[in-house]
Amino acid sequence: MSANNLVISIDAMGGDNSPRVVIEGLAIAAKKNPDVRFLLFGDRPKIMASLNNYPQLMKVCDIRHSDEMVRNEDKPSQVIRNKNTSMYMAIDAVRKGEAQAIVSAGNTGALMAISKLVLKTIQKIHRPAIVSIMPHKNGKYVMLDLGANTECSAVNLAEFAMMGNILAKNALGIARPRVALLNIGAEEMKGKEEIHRAAQMIRNSHMDIDFTGYIEPHEIPNDKADVIVADGFTGNIALKSIEGTARLVIRLIKKAVKESFLAKLGIPFMLGVILKVKKNMDPRLYNGAMFVGLNGLSVKSHGGTDALGFSVAVSNAANLVRQNFVATIRSEIEKVDLDELSQEAIYDVY
Amino acid sequence: MSANNLVISIDAMGGDNSPRVVIEGLAIAAKKNPDVRFLLFGDRPKIMASLNNYPQLMKVCDIRHSDEMVRNEDKPSQVIRNKNTSMYMAIDAVRKGEAQAIVSAGNTGALMAISKLVLKTIQKIHRPAIVSIMPHKNGKYVMLDLGANTECSAVNLAEFAMMGNILAKNALGIARPRVALLNIGAEEMKGKEEIHRAAQMIRNSHMDIDFTGYIEPHEIPNDKADVIVADGFTGNIALKSIEGTARLVIRLIKKAVKESFLAKLGIPFMLGVILKVKKNMDPRLYNGAMFVGLNGLSVKSHGGTDALGFSVAVSNAANLVRQNFVATIRSEIEKVDLDELSQEAIYDVY
Repeated sequence: MSANNLVISIDAMGGDNSPRVVIEGLAIAAKKNPDVRFLLFGDRPKIMASLNNYPQLMKVCDIRHSDEMVRNEDKPSQVIRNKNTSMYMAIDAVRKGEAQAIVSAGNTGALMAISKLVLKTIQKIHRPAIVSIMPHKNGKYVMLDLGANTECSAVNLAEFAMMGNILAKNALGIARPRVALLNIGAEEMKGKEEIHRAAQMIRNSHMDIDFTGYIEPHEIPNDKADVIVADGFTGNIALKSIEGTARLVIRLIKKAVKESFLAKLGIPFMLGVILKVKKNMDPRLYNGAMFVGLNGLSVKSHGGTDALGFSVAVSNAANLVRQNFVATIRSEIEKVDLDELSQEAIYDVY
Repeated sequence: MSANNLVISIDAMGGDNSPRVVIEGLAIAAKKNPDVRFLLFGDRPKIMASLNNYPQLMKVCDIRHSDEMVRNEDKPSQVIRNKNTSMYMAIDAVRKGEAQAIVSAGNTGALMAISKLVLKTIQKIHRPAIVSIMPHKNGKYVMLDLGANTECSAVNLAEFAMMGNILAKNALGIARPRVALLNIGAEEMKGKEEIHRAAQMIRNSHMDIDFTGYIEPHEIPNDKADVIVADGFTGNIALKSIEGTARLVIRLIKKAVKESFLAKLGIPFMLGVILKVKKNMDPRLYNGAMFVGLNGLSVKSHGGTDALGFSVAVSNAANLVRQNFVATIRSEIEKVDLDELSQEAIYDVY
């Protein structure tokens, strides 16, 4: 055992082409994070078959064998209580204190369900949320909730604002993040009642947040806010609309180039541009949706990503652990008088 | 008066740089639609100042003077009962049967409010919706509601599906449009209860619709459906996410080209591609949000569009009038036993 005391638990069996892609991703992540050890859960012979190619990585890995795994087609309800899957064991390592974060490229619903069951929601936080880091024209922003909660109360949204604020500080290094609620208009009374009430709550609470009001989706790329808060349904709709459109534009350009002899001649001139834009938009560099609001950090890597993408999810997790992300949320929620806010919410149920 | 019996009513004072841009747009639209006459409402001297440049257009225009206009900053409630604005008068011309459609680039909220007040919702239709035509990888699709109704019941969504189906037939010429509900997952139980119930209703009704189930936003560009149905909040979020992202990608490419000497050399080779993609994505070519479900067609042009954009909105309106769009909706709604569906909805309110 080395002196590294930052440990990340890895579900080695999640995602396409696991455990190979997972191991390859860890090899990249290990180089960037020399202070991290990995606790791998999964089929030992399969893990070893890949790990043997990375003798340096092997020095910072411990393997715990598991015969079972969660498959993509499994329903969360079917697998949530099976303690023998690599996913469950990897999450449970965080509960036991053997690791400070868990990363899996497996079944999202199962990962959320088991993470909630095992790690439990932080006391006083009503709902955990799924958060991602995304690109805007000058840098990055965080957006939550991306799908953990289809319906959200004003209190839920206010809590997401608080957690997103901390995440933007810790993960993006922004001293005072601008926090905005996603809405369909900038005016006070546009959109849904929950959003209006969440805005009031954030303003009336003692949260130390630079709350900038509402933001419309087309303003997100213009660097108007660092934290975008929405209910899980709306956030998921926005996220997938953004992904689909980015791919559409790039596909239209590719198609047009293919169909033009002249454009093909121009490709060498444009290579630098293509690489730069690709790098700005590369989904692998934004991989790793974080489940926040739990007693422990659970990170979902895209199932179809490659080694680079997986390594980004792992590095994000390590970075947040170094910054004591979970403890910061716990102490922030203590400061905020959310009881008062929730009571107000209960009285005003409509 | 010529023999043209298709008349479109125009709020000449709506939008930036009106009435100049409006008149320039009509000049383009008149060439493309020789069967259409225009009934213009607004400040006669100002209209004439622009119209004098287009003697051909003048032959198919009648002007009705109005001293007042709806401004962008006016609240709908402030202007809805002022019968002397160019917008009100233009809409009222449709009610009187002097025109078959109205086009305005003015205040969206006021246009919707006055259109509803004056034209009235079609009997048995519960809510009008805002519809737009948008680009996917192989062509176009229609999406509704884009913001008329923040909250929608299952019945509303089912009616939107019916109206969108007719619009896709009439405006896109698709014989049997594929109709889908926008949701955050393809599985039966994903997303919101209203969406599940709308799916059941559409399946159980006697609507003659090729209903394909749920669609996720990132699948929209992949030509998976011709009609995308959502509540107004969700549709508006998706629409603005799509717009913002398309602009972001194009802006990133422009910025990267500017910063690269080599890329600048390549521009001549790429011009064809740039023009082609621009044409595919050009928001002017998709201008004109249609308010459907009313006794008369009301079309909202983007306030900041140019003459070409305004002409597209006018051509869309003319095209739908030629196809008897409003009458088709009226007769379709008669065929559907929506009373039964709505009763079911009332019993199941939750």
